[in-house]
Amino acid sequence: MNNSQFSILNSPSSTSLAPFFAPEGVLVVGVSQNPAKLGFGLARNLVLSNYAGNIHYVSPHGGTLFGRPIYKSITEMPKTADLAVLLIPATAVAEALRQCGQQGIKGVIIAAGGFREIGEKGVRLEQECLRIAQSYGMRLIGPNCIGILDTHLPLDTTFLPPPAPPRGDVALISHSGAMCAAVIDWARGQGFGLSRLVSLGNQVDVQETDVLAAVAADPYTKVVTLYLEGISDGRRFVTEASRVMRHTPIVALKAGRSASGRQAAASHTGALAGAESAFDAAFRRAGVIRADTTEEMFDWARALAWSPLPNGRRVAILTNAGGPGVTAADALETNGLSLAPLQPATVDDLRRLLPPFASVHNPVDMLASASPAQYARALQLLLADETVDSVLVVLPQPPMYATGAVARAIIPHIHAADKPVLAAVMGEMMIQEAVAHFRAAHVPEYRFPERAAASLAALCQRAERLALPPHTPIPFEDVDKATAARILEEETAVAGQNGGWISQAGMMGLLTAYGINVPQMRLAATAAEAAAVAAAMGVPVALKIAAEGVAHKSDAGGVLLDVMGETAVMAGFERVVTAITAAHPDALIEGVHVQPMIAGGQEVIVGMVRDPQFGAVMMFGSGGVEVEGLNDVAFALAPLLPSDPAEMMESTWAGRKLDGFRSIEAVDKTAVVDVLIRLGQLAADFPALAEIEINPVRVLTDKAVAVDARGSLNGTV
Amino acid sequence: MNNSQFSILNSPSSTSLAPFFAPEGVLVVGVSQNPAKLGFGLARNLVLSNYAGNIHYVSPHGGTLFGRPIYKSITEMPKTADLAVLLIPATAVAEALRQCGQQGIKGVIIAAGGFREIGEKGVRLEQECLRIAQSYGMRLIGPNCIGILDTHLPLDTTFLPPPAPPRGDVALISHSGAMCAAVIDWARGQGFGLSRLVSLGNQVDVQETDVLAAVAADPYTKVVTLYLEGISDGRRFVTEASRVMRHTPIVALKAGRSASGRQAAASHTGALAGAESAFDAAFRRAGVIRADTTEEMFDWARALAWSPLPNGRRVAILTNAGGPGVTAADALETNGLSLAPLQPATVDDLRRLLPPFASVHNPVDMLASASPAQYARALQLLLADETVDSVLVVLPQPPMYATGAVARAIIPHIHAADKPVLAAVMGEMMIQEAVAHFRAAHVPEYRFPERAAASLAALCQRAERLALPPHTPIPFEDVDKATAARILEEETAVAGQNGGWISQAGMMGLLTAYGINVPQMRLAATAAEAAAVAAAMGVPVALKIAAEGVAHKSDAGGVLLDVMGETAVMAGFERVVTAITAAHPDALIEGVHVQPMIAGGQEVIVGMVRDPQFGAVMMFGSGGVEVEGLNDVAFALAPLLPSDPAEMMESTWAGRKLDGFRSIEAVDKTAVVDVLIRLGQLAADFPALAEIEINPVRVLTDKAVAVDARGSLNGTV
Repeated sequence: MNNSQFSILNSPSSTSLAPFFAPEGVLVVGVSQNPAKLGFGLARNLVLSNYAGNIHYVSPHGGTLFGRPIYKSITEMPKTADLAVLLIPATAVAEALRQCGQQGIKGVIIAAGGFREIGEKGVRLEQECLRIAQSYGMRLIGPNCIGILDTHLPLDTTFLPPPAPPRGDVALISHSGAMCAAVIDWARGQGFGLSRLVSLGNQVDVQETDVLAAVAADPYTKVVTLYLEGISDGRRFVTEASRVMRHTPIVALKAGRSASGRQAAASHTGALAGAESAFDAAFRRAGVIRADTTEEMFDWARALAWSPLPNGRRVAILTNAGGPGVTAADALETNGLSLAPLQPATVDDLRRLLPPFASVHNPVDMLASASPAQYARALQLLLADETVDSVLVVLPQPPMYATGAVARAIIPHIHAADKPVLAAVMGEMMIQEAVAHFRAAHVPEYRFPERAAASLAALCQRAERLALPPHTPIPFEDVDKATAARILEEETAVAGQNGGWISQAGMMGLLTAYGINVPQMRLAATAAEAAAVAAAMGVPVALKIAAEGVAHKSDAGGVLLDVMGETAVMAGFERVVTAITAAHPDALIEGVHVQPMIAGGQEVIVGMVRDPQFGAVMMFGSGGVEVEGLNDVAFALAPLLPSDPAEMMESTWAGRKLDGFRSIEAVDKTAVVDVLIRLGQLAADFPALAEIEINPVRVLTDKAVAVDARGSLNGTV
Repeated sequence: MNNSQFSILNSPSSTSLAPFFAPEGVLVVGVSQNPAKLGFGLARNLVLSNYAGNIHYVSPHGGTLFGRPIYKSITEMPKTADLAVLLIPATAVAEALRQCGQQGIKGVIIAAGGFREIGEKGVRLEQECLRIAQSYGMRLIGPNCIGILDTHLPLDTTFLPPPAPPRGDVALISHSGAMCAAVIDWARGQGFGLSRLVSLGNQVDVQETDVLAAVAADPYTKVVTLYLEGISDGRRFVTEASRVMRHTPIVALKAGRSASGRQAAASHTGALAGAESAFDAAFRRAGVIRADTTEEMFDWARALAWSPLPNGRRVAILTNAGGPGVTAADALETNGLSLAPLQPATVDDLRRLLPPFASVHNPVDMLASASPAQYARALQLLLADETVDSVLVVLPQPPMYATGAVARAIIPHIHAADKPVLAAVMGEMMIQEAVAHFRAAHVPEYRFPERAAASLAALCQRAERLALPPHTPIPFEDVDKATAARILEEETAVAGQNGGWISQAGMMGLLTAYGINVPQMRLAATAAEAAAVAAAMGVPVALKIAAEGVAHKSDAGGVLLDVMGETAVMAGFERVVTAITAAHPDALIEGVHVQPMIAGGQEVIVGMVRDPQFGAVMMFGSGGVEVEGLNDVAFALAPLLPSDPAEMMESTWAGRKLDGFRSIEAVDKTAVVDVLIRLGQLAADFPALAEIEINPVRVLTDKAVAVDARGSLNGTV
């Protein structure tokens, strides 16, 4: 999927994609008169789609098809097309591209397979295709894809069997052609239609980020769904998606979780920050809503396409039976939503409207006798209540009325409301009419409350994201970038000798330059020197082996804490040196660092790793030696936005506990926020930094101190 | 829902339920000639169901209906019915019951509502109904329910609109009538039919546990699904479900999560052990598979009804496209399954079978050209591979073949296999034929791989549960039950004064009697006495306030750790007394407990709370003051089974870490297991114990010590 080595040759511009999304004429190379062949399907779909531009067919066999001549070669046909679709053997593609270029074609969809998916030979073919395309100023989609579909233009360059997909407002950009085909067919039963669809295939040229804005620019597209197996240029995707999502919601299914694995675990941060954490952080930064399953993606897409956004997470449930109401209330909780506390006036009005034993509190259970008119009036009352941010109508077939009649009665009120109303219509045959009404009216409907509640949560997620201030990383005046640069230059010079690790002194220097507190630290070469240094400090000290390249020092016995008194310090010196010599016979031991112990407070970890797709990713969480076991960590892209630290702290116990808990004293949370932001800035300023981990950051009531830190340089570890 | 105060009057026996599940004749009271009325629907359904026994109608208006006379009163009709269905106003039910009793009716379904759901008056009506029923030896289902359905007997006592639900092998027992109605209708579109359905309503008499065995005894029922809003008699349910699940799988959806809330948080264990944890523990003990959504419940039910069980969690994926294969692999990981590592011989055979660029490793991607014959042969090869425990066939519409042809080709191999094969058939119109074939052949099929994988996981869960040895709590010879009983007697005598809390001495005595190590502990009434005790111990000591009824002593400053030396101990004594006096001015302070400090090792928490529905529930997890924040805990019903402690430890970081992690030394895990089992035994032996919490249990390399413990008595807190 990834192809950044090629894409950087281009400077993508959306104008160059015009031949794909508004072609003046389409040339299909590889048509067939045999209905069993894909080349027949492609020729047929283009005609059946009612595409209004010129259509030309090419096949070496010649003849006619759908009333049009089949040219025997590309060079024969009139120059009135700007888009070509190639459905020919891979080995013939390069020559066809040259001919396309000569004919003035500006966009080519290579539907054919047989490229990188077959190995090295296919990769070379792709490279040749790209070179040819670039020499003619052509853009390529594919190879190995099913092309483009636009139900409104209209245009259909796929070879899929009829009927054509229904028009709609959901766009799909996909790395998998099979997923496209399945979704096109599946959508027919789900009550939504497609606007645009782009199957990207091997992405030799055009990639997911290139088409995102072009697809979202379509006025018929109300939501963009993405099936992604990776992202070629992570930061560009984040930038582009952040821009697009302001006007068009984006939902993504990121496949390939199991394959993405973990990065090399040189640090706790590295061990915990797998590629999936980076994707999570990137989607969150970009405002892309991440679905876990295909059904979720399209459940949510319908709601995002059709519903206004809620002002909050308080939901009113309106139903005619107990069980479905209980299930719906559960589903709200599961999805981080809450039951709206109805205002007394609403409760009174409902009591007047409904039979004596109806439940007029949320969930509102109107009982089985509820009529369409009661449904409509109760919905109006709930929508008018200012504590209600959205309504979930749960509609099992009422025993005495047609479900369709209920749908008809409530739809006008749903359309009139500026709050979202989602419907869970429970059943199959009995609810067909209601479902048809809801779909025609663009009211999102689901079979059970659980899926409706999850879709409401997606609406909330988008509303909350849009409410955040625009992206502006927090600037610092008081960082000493020049000093940090100088330290990194020195460290880079000797990095080879240290296995890529930054020296302790260098690490402490970097942190200090960026305004992060570090404890006093003195290197003692001998036990006696250590004792003297400790005595001067006057408090218990920590002894830490000074031996570069030794990861997880404390695991190997290279750290002693809380040592006090001459005898103890001298014995400690020998003990850590002996332990490290035993564990790492080749380690170059410079001596022992002596640090004053910092007592009390809380311990957290703050780290950074550089993800290959998204760059610097920050981690915050529970520190100490149990980091990996507790897995109480949160991630965000660096540099951090003002809202990031609070989110990271809210989502971890380490963060919540900074405010105090039972006998655990509250400590200086803002100091931790400061450390996080400053480290994020350092990572953003110096791409040469591969990894940094401050573990622990000791947080006291008035400050945070980076007690121990390690870092490594890019390309050297 | 709960009604244990009534049910204890009965001794439920399944024979007395015969009139519900094999009635000789049915009497419908409250029929109507008006097709808009529910009483018409009920009369109609009974006839249309082809029920073979006698059918009698009663209505004060008389007349005829469906060719039968309508008797004007119950007393008029011939005595050839043993089941009655009452669809009459609540106020008329009691008299009708008396008449039913006089006519020899043995089972009554009260479909009518208007009972406890309307308040106190309704509760009294129910009590009256139950008394009447018992005086005639009748059993009652309902009130406020939609009755019983048996598609094979056949019998339909519901008033739901036609058509009748299709025959099938999935049974449903439900606390919600609306859920029954919705599922009956929804099932039509999902490809499964129902065998038996019981709508339990208010459960004045017959409850979920009563009907479980009767429903599962039906030879047509291959799986029992439960929609539960609570369980009336938790331990009886566990016993009954454990027995039933040996032959018939049970899947449950427990609704009302959000309502169940938390129990009183007098201990960490109490705060963490909400009712949901108890349900989880109970379902796990009973071997009931718990679904989170309605769709999940029936997805899994189809697989459980139709598929053999796998021998393990290794799954082969067979597909014709990359994206669906990737999605399927993700879904396996999400559901705790793994990709089977294919044997070399299988890989070779697949390579010979498939085109050169097909992926012959798992997931097996046969490419878009895959023919029905290739699907069939590849499936055979995978099923024959002994590393493959099950196969997930992922079938997007192949571009060149009909999906239905693929289904036809593989079904015989699925039927011949003793391993489960589940299908994800992706699409809608293009896959109708394949779906129809799979449904007819009872091959579980789903629209996307995610739902298929979750269903495979349910099969694995059942297989693993059936492989466990039968339930036998671990017996102990070396517990001193008599001493424990004596201590509890004494504590009970003074419990009122202590706010229900057991004294420190009593608590330590109880643990000692059950063979749990406790540290030496001496009560010091004065500072000087504390200093003397500490000096005699010769190691640093812990000072703990001795004041009964003070919860969370350490939060209030009532605990000092690691105190050594006369001056320090005396100062410490005063400090804890002052702190507790300030925090709890009314506390009756007896002095200070002096304990030798136990250094090193690891800290865990072991606790027990008595759940109102399921009795004693054990908790294990990360101890200390952060218990509630970390929420790293697991639960199981007491007394524990041999398999429980390992499961509890595997599912918590606290448990996994006992084996050591990096610099954290491994400790005596078996000693913790012993503490867990012994405490579980204590809880099971003495129902008077409401709550016990040992926090921390300090685990050393050769033993586990209950450093601090508290407990309370039932009915006194």
